[in-house]
Amino acid sequence: MASTLPDAIPPDGSRSRARDLLMGLQESICAGLEALDREGRFLEETWERPEGGGGRSRVMKAGRIFEQGGVNFSEVQGEELPPSILNQRPEAKGHPWFAVGTSMVLHPRSPWVPTVHLNYRYFEAGPVWWFGGGADLTPYYPFLEDALHFHRTLKGACDAVDPLYYTVFKPWCDEYFFLKHRGETRGVGGIFYDYQDVGGILYKGSDPHGAAAEASQGVSPIAQDWEKLFALAQSCGEAFLPSYVPIVERRASLPWGEKERQFQLYRRGRYVEFNLVFDRGTIFGLQTNGRTESILMSLPPLVRWEYAYSPEAGSREALLTEVFTRPQNWLDDASLEERCAQRQAVN
Amino acid sequence: MASTLPDAIPPDGSRSRARDLLMGLQESICAGLEALDREGRFLEETWERPEGGGGRSRVMKAGRIFEQGGVNFSEVQGEELPPSILNQRPEAKGHPWFAVGTSMVLHPRSPWVPTVHLNYRYFEAGPVWWFGGGADLTPYYPFLEDALHFHRTLKGACDAVDPLYYTVFKPWCDEYFFLKHRGETRGVGGIFYDYQDVGGILYKGSDPHGAAAEASQGVSPIAQDWEKLFALAQSCGEAFLPSYVPIVERRASLPWGEKERQFQLYRRGRYVEFNLVFDRGTIFGLQTNGRTESILMSLPPLVRWEYAYSPEAGSREALLTEVFTRPQNWLDDASLEERCAQRQAVN
Repeated sequence: MASTLPDAIPPDGSRSRARDLLMGLQESICAGLEALDREGRFLEETWERPEGGGGRSRVMKAGRIFEQGGVNFSEVQGEELPPSILNQRPEAKGHPWFAVGTSMVLHPRSPWVPTVHLNYRYFEAGPVWWFGGGADLTPYYPFLEDALHFHRTLKGACDAVDPLYYTVFKPWCDEYFFLKHRGETRGVGGIFYDYQDVGGILYKGSDPHGAAAEASQGVSPIAQDWEKLFALAQSCGEAFLPSYVPIVERRASLPWGEKERQFQLYRRGRYVEFNLVFDRGTIFGLQTNGRTESILMSLPPLVRWEYAYSPEAGSREALLTEVFTRPQNWLDDASLEERCAQRQAVN
Repeated sequence: MASTLPDAIPPDGSRSRARDLLMGLQESICAGLEALDREGRFLEETWERPEGGGGRSRVMKAGRIFEQGGVNFSEVQGEELPPSILNQRPEAKGHPWFAVGTSMVLHPRSPWVPTVHLNYRYFEAGPVWWFGGGADLTPYYPFLEDALHFHRTLKGACDAVDPLYYTVFKPWCDEYFFLKHRGETRGVGGIFYDYQDVGGILYKGSDPHGAAAEASQGVSPIAQDWEKLFALAQSCGEAFLPSYVPIVERRASLPWGEKERQFQLYRRGRYVEFNLVFDRGTIFGLQTNGRTESILMSLPPLVRWEYAYSPEAGSREALLTEVFTRPQNWLDDASLEERCAQRQAVN
């Protein structure tokens, strides 16, 4: 059990180091996004949570590139974690907890530019601590080049710490960002991990027969400690701007029409469905009396639902649905290029 | 316990009587709404559920009055009810179940016309059966007259069967359609009831200290059997058109502008939040592998979220939020007229 190992104890200053890392991540991401957008500015609000802690929300509304974007830092504490987390970490029962995290969701104006989400977080609760996080990309139109760039950059950030990480965290992302009632992934994925501590079992998800579990079984347990997991959060956090900015630069100035806009608004509905029905961060925030406006900052500014909509066969909208909302081995599947080639042109 | 009483056994033909009532309700509501809209027509789709049963979905898109409206009938069965229901009805564990229901949500174009929801349903599962249902009104602008008309009509329909019903089902509706994370009711409410059987305890909700529990404690147990509960569903179902059509007729032809439209789209976000985070019908449908498009037919066609929006003090939008999203004794509180008088004019 994690709590009996000597290196299960976090290093001195663990909380302030995690805080500085994640506040710094908020800073650097906001600076990078403002430089990219050129017109939009993040407005900051700080808030306190009655039960302990607070946060710093930064929201950009009506930018040139970003219709809405939010980057939220929070540092909160409480007397006991909610049941959804205690199920996974029973050792934390009866102990006060501390959590620090930075999360981000960007909703671009242009349907050619994907929505992107990032979250890195660190918990301490009595005898246990853990890191969690990840980033995932949700395109509205199918550009294989963009999915490959995003995955290659995240893989590089993971590999710099341990080449096993991407092999498990990539399928875990597909599993986590899955809309069961639609049979769709939220987008092309990226990486996701949770409950990472000295117990070097990489996969701690809920599907024992899934691809992430299988990938983890081949390699676990691995050598892992606080410093290594801190380095992982740092490496992946720093990789965000390089993983996303080139995609925006390639796509943002291309013209688009009402048809593409309507499809974007329709697909944003899936984002809402995922966040309100399945997302662990949203549920944790609402369960722990978090700040509703900061939690729901992830919802898109304008969304459309259409009963029984189905894209035209052979269209780019159909390709998005058939290929870019299914788990794919983006970096290892040579057939993807041919499947996408015909329909990924903008015009 | 219900299952030990002789009148706990439903009458011969209970399933077909409930089916006929609820299919007939779908028919009469659709006919009434088409007559009201004059341009929009309901398109019907029938569907089958692999595990047993199916349904008849009717959706109106882009009508004159209704931007979108859906009236869905379903009759489904399965081997065992999901945990969310077995918690409330442990006697049903291990038994096959049967459920029949009609549900409706209407999203009008005009911000002056309220959204409305209705659902009536009947369950049998081994030794137990029960009725549930209700209707609730969600205005975007504050017209006291409309809230009073809706409540008076539903109260009349309840009183015709038993004058105790409205006293309990009205506060139960406020409790059920409550967005905890917003501190708001979904709208001005109406009536809601669930798990009604021969055990004549009217209130079977989750808040033992709430107004509905208190109202129920004073009166229970009451004499109640299958025929009486069937009559209640019939009476309330028949009351829908008279409760809603006059409101539409008063409001639909009044002009409105971009400001009102934007507020309507913003408030529709609350409807989405309620349905995806809290609604028992939605969760039941998604848990029992229901037809996703029919379940999510309740979501509005176009929705807006705005970070940290707050209506201008003293505005009609503020009145809506402060009075029409809080539990009110609509039919007994003389102060409401004065509180609403200043700000409920359309122009």
